[in-house]
Amino acid sequence: MRSIPLKAKPLDMETGRHIVVLHEQDAEELGHFAGDRVQLATPKAKLVAIANTTKRMVRKGEVGAFIEVAEALGLKLGDTLSVTLVPRPRSVDFIKKKMSGQQLTTEEIYAIVDDITAMNLSSVEMSAFVVAEVIQGMVTSEIVALTQRMVSSGDRLELNTSPVLDVHSIGGVPGNKYAMVAVPIVAAAGLVVPKTSSRAITSAAGTADVMEVLTNVTLGMDEIKRIVQKVGAVLAWGGAVRLAPADDIIISVERTLGVDPRCQLLASVMSKKLAVGADRILIDIPTGPGAKVEAMDQARSFAHDFMELGNKLNVQVEVAITYGGQPVGYAVGPALEAKEALETLRGNGPGSLVEKATSLAGIMLELGGVASSGMGRQMACEILNSGKADQKMREIIEAQGGNPDVKPEEIPIGDKKEVILAPHDGYVINIDNACINEIARTVGAPRDKGAGLRVMLKEGRKVSKDEPILEIYAKHETRLDDALRIVKRNPPITIGGMLLEKMTHRPRIG
Amino acid sequence: MRSIPLKAKPLDMETGRHIVVLHEQDAEELGHFAGDRVQLATPKAKLVAIANTTKRMVRKGEVGAFIEVAEALGLKLGDTLSVTLVPRPRSVDFIKKKMSGQQLTTEEIYAIVDDITAMNLSSVEMSAFVVAEVIQGMVTSEIVALTQRMVSSGDRLELNTSPVLDVHSIGGVPGNKYAMVAVPIVAAAGLVVPKTSSRAITSAAGTADVMEVLTNVTLGMDEIKRIVQKVGAVLAWGGAVRLAPADDIIISVERTLGVDPRCQLLASVMSKKLAVGADRILIDIPTGPGAKVEAMDQARSFAHDFMELGNKLNVQVEVAITYGGQPVGYAVGPALEAKEALETLRGNGPGSLVEKATSLAGIMLELGGVASSGMGRQMACEILNSGKADQKMREIIEAQGGNPDVKPEEIPIGDKKEVILAPHDGYVINIDNACINEIARTVGAPRDKGAGLRVMLKEGRKVSKDEPILEIYAKHETRLDDALRIVKRNPPITIGGMLLEKMTHRPRIG
Repeated sequence: MRSIPLKAKPLDMETGRHIVVLHEQDAEELGHFAGDRVQLATPKAKLVAIANTTKRMVRKGEVGAFIEVAEALGLKLGDTLSVTLVPRPRSVDFIKKKMSGQQLTTEEIYAIVDDITAMNLSSVEMSAFVVAEVIQGMVTSEIVALTQRMVSSGDRLELNTSPVLDVHSIGGVPGNKYAMVAVPIVAAAGLVVPKTSSRAITSAAGTADVMEVLTNVTLGMDEIKRIVQKVGAVLAWGGAVRLAPADDIIISVERTLGVDPRCQLLASVMSKKLAVGADRILIDIPTGPGAKVEAMDQARSFAHDFMELGNKLNVQVEVAITYGGQPVGYAVGPALEAKEALETLRGNGPGSLVEKATSLAGIMLELGGVASSGMGRQMACEILNSGKADQKMREIIEAQGGNPDVKPEEIPIGDKKEVILAPHDGYVINIDNACINEIARTVGAPRDKGAGLRVMLKEGRKVSKDEPILEIYAKHETRLDDALRIVKRNPPITIGGMLLEKMTHRPRIG
Repeated sequence: MRSIPLKAKPLDMETGRHIVVLHEQDAEELGHFAGDRVQLATPKAKLVAIANTTKRMVRKGEVGAFIEVAEALGLKLGDTLSVTLVPRPRSVDFIKKKMSGQQLTTEEIYAIVDDITAMNLSSVEMSAFVVAEVIQGMVTSEIVALTQRMVSSGDRLELNTSPVLDVHSIGGVPGNKYAMVAVPIVAAAGLVVPKTSSRAITSAAGTADVMEVLTNVTLGMDEIKRIVQKVGAVLAWGGAVRLAPADDIIISVERTLGVDPRCQLLASVMSKKLAVGADRILIDIPTGPGAKVEAMDQARSFAHDFMELGNKLNVQVEVAITYGGQPVGYAVGPALEAKEALETLRGNGPGSLVEKATSLAGIMLELGGVASSGMGRQMACEILNSGKADQKMREIIEAQGGNPDVKPEEIPIGDKKEVILAPHDGYVINIDNACINEIARTVGAPRDKGAGLRVMLKEGRKVSKDEPILEIYAKHETRLDDALRIVKRNPPITIGGMLLEKMTHRPRIG
């Protein structure tokens, strides 16, 4: 292959990939076309980058290097690089093989994950992989390979102990702060729970956003290890550590397309859990109208896939299918949820949250071998009621750098408030998850920690005209106005009379 | 939707799309995630762009506008823009509908083509469309809609006459300069042939590269119209006019992935022909080992699709399946092919080129209604032998700005030459198209016009040891050396004895 010497021109722009820009004439000299790869060599280092061509960004004789490339090679303006055309990576052929519906070998999956991690695939190629996953799917052996390679592509928490418990909810239900209660219960029983979680992407609050109201969640791997070894648990933000980084890149492509291929979801969840060393994993699948999974048979099929995958990965997986048709507890939004979680730990929580947290904690206690089969739930309730879970949460908060003595009523909530009243007598027949989420985000959650809402009653409850059904909290008045417009356009809580239809007898004509 | 005012910061970079960059904090304020769209409004104009986020490329309060956006809105540093989050275009939902295997309506296809043309789709979304085309395919009604919208998205040649003839080869065979002979024959019979063609992308020479040896091929639409009205034909570079621009964008994605979905190929070919107003179209499908289409049944299926598509588009389409297993004529490379084409027009051409050019011209003469059925080939030969096609070519060359009296022997050929000799007696049993192509490109074709090669004999020919079988021409000695290494590693011409196997009678044992 032909090489040409070019002068480096660092470009102050991030691309999330290894990308350079060649002048058209140099590209022609190399026999290069837009999107082809070049190897860049300095006397000290080599790197492969995707090269685009330009007439004006760089001059003939120059190669424009975006931030990622410039930093990786330590380039300064005018440094000489030897630039060589190199073939398309083999992983692109494997992506095409998946497009054609064929099963990939372990080595082929590894090659794809490695090139994604190394920032060697273009957006076009990454998208082709995701679309092929959506249309053609993967069998378990492929998902196993995908999971394992995503794990080994990133950082890992090495605790050198077993069992290591973890729990993950596949999401989609507002107010889902159960982990803030379940994790302390399980840790209070002496089990190890290194729980990492995400910030909200499209929801009102992720577990990391809620925990951040009480303490620091941006922890490095060493801190996580130290804290877990000290207090048995952590509630940290996963984004601060490099767990399965290939997964994060793939997720950004999924978001652009608005797709969520099942094989990638399975691999994504399992890889984040394996990366923290978990070997006893509980998966929560909230199911119901307006949740990510709406039907029971769909939830069971998902559960089956998770357990089969766990089996092949040599970790024990159990699955809880929980009701996801309305919010968990009453509070939605970081501070409101943190407050509700603390109240629950101190014996004053709403039924649906206590129910969910103790059920899931109970399964984990059995998984961890500290409760006998069928007795986990009862043990979880005892730990919660004894105050030991609250004590454990104080230890976790303190170990992560927060105030262990924080009182629920001291947590600052947005001071602009609006109360929505029932328009007439009746029963709550529907709470619309998507609309609840939209309102909470509109008033500023998760960025404004104090923004959010409280639903005042749940589905099935009888309600009288002018009784409060929803409280909305915001930091900014204008955002509250925006939220009220949404409430008017699309009521989040539907109240019906029990009389669904009135039949009138009328004489038949003709 | 929330709007915020931001100051424009033009960024001197081309992206081929409408893309802007927001500071992370402003993106958060808007509730925006990487890849979401924003509307940018100045007092005079509005535009939707894909927005990415950054920590360092722009400051809070600024919006970075790449060249395409900055030019479309006429932005200067510090101009105030009102920036609003807008939903993902509906075309992305239609791409997902195609991903799920459903048939798209005409309106849905139009929406996709319109957003591609308007540079509103990201690489990820464009790739999803192409991959969905590859995996799910399209039915004829979808391809009709795709073709029509791609045509109306670009410039069109309005000749206000009929018939308008055109011919297109779907490619893949080296030395395929037949159009340089067939077009003058057809035009000499009084028919109108506005032939636009491409430059080589991965081959050694496109028709535009070959014609450019003799005259100017970079012509605007007005020039093409004037020349066609004057001399009846043109041989122009299609890339200089905006014919079906959406197609060019899609093709760049196909190249990155190395895929060529059949539905897009059909729409691509037909849209370029319809855009120049052709209503009688001949499609050439070179078929044979090493051609794009290798098997006859595959070629027939393609032919059927083209004719059905023509039928639905109200244009007459005929298809010629030609032999594509070895080069057409002997010459490969722009100048060598131009020389061979001129020699052919002047009565001294190789059999395979004369055969192909007159066969295809004959079909076009019949399509154009100037030859009766079955008599086109004979008429084409008569026109070629009479010198009228040569005269017409001189007119075309002159009308496009070249020297009509150019002699084949005056065309400059690379002055570095190497002759490959037959290693032993035998018959030519194979000429490897891909290898011929690689050698021609290695010596510099199509950029070095004089670079290329001549195969000295065709498949089936008897050859003696040390008889010349290949001449290679280059401008640079080093490139000739590179080509010789390829010849040694992978002989482009295989010579076998006729004795393929020798059977010896031996006594049976046991």
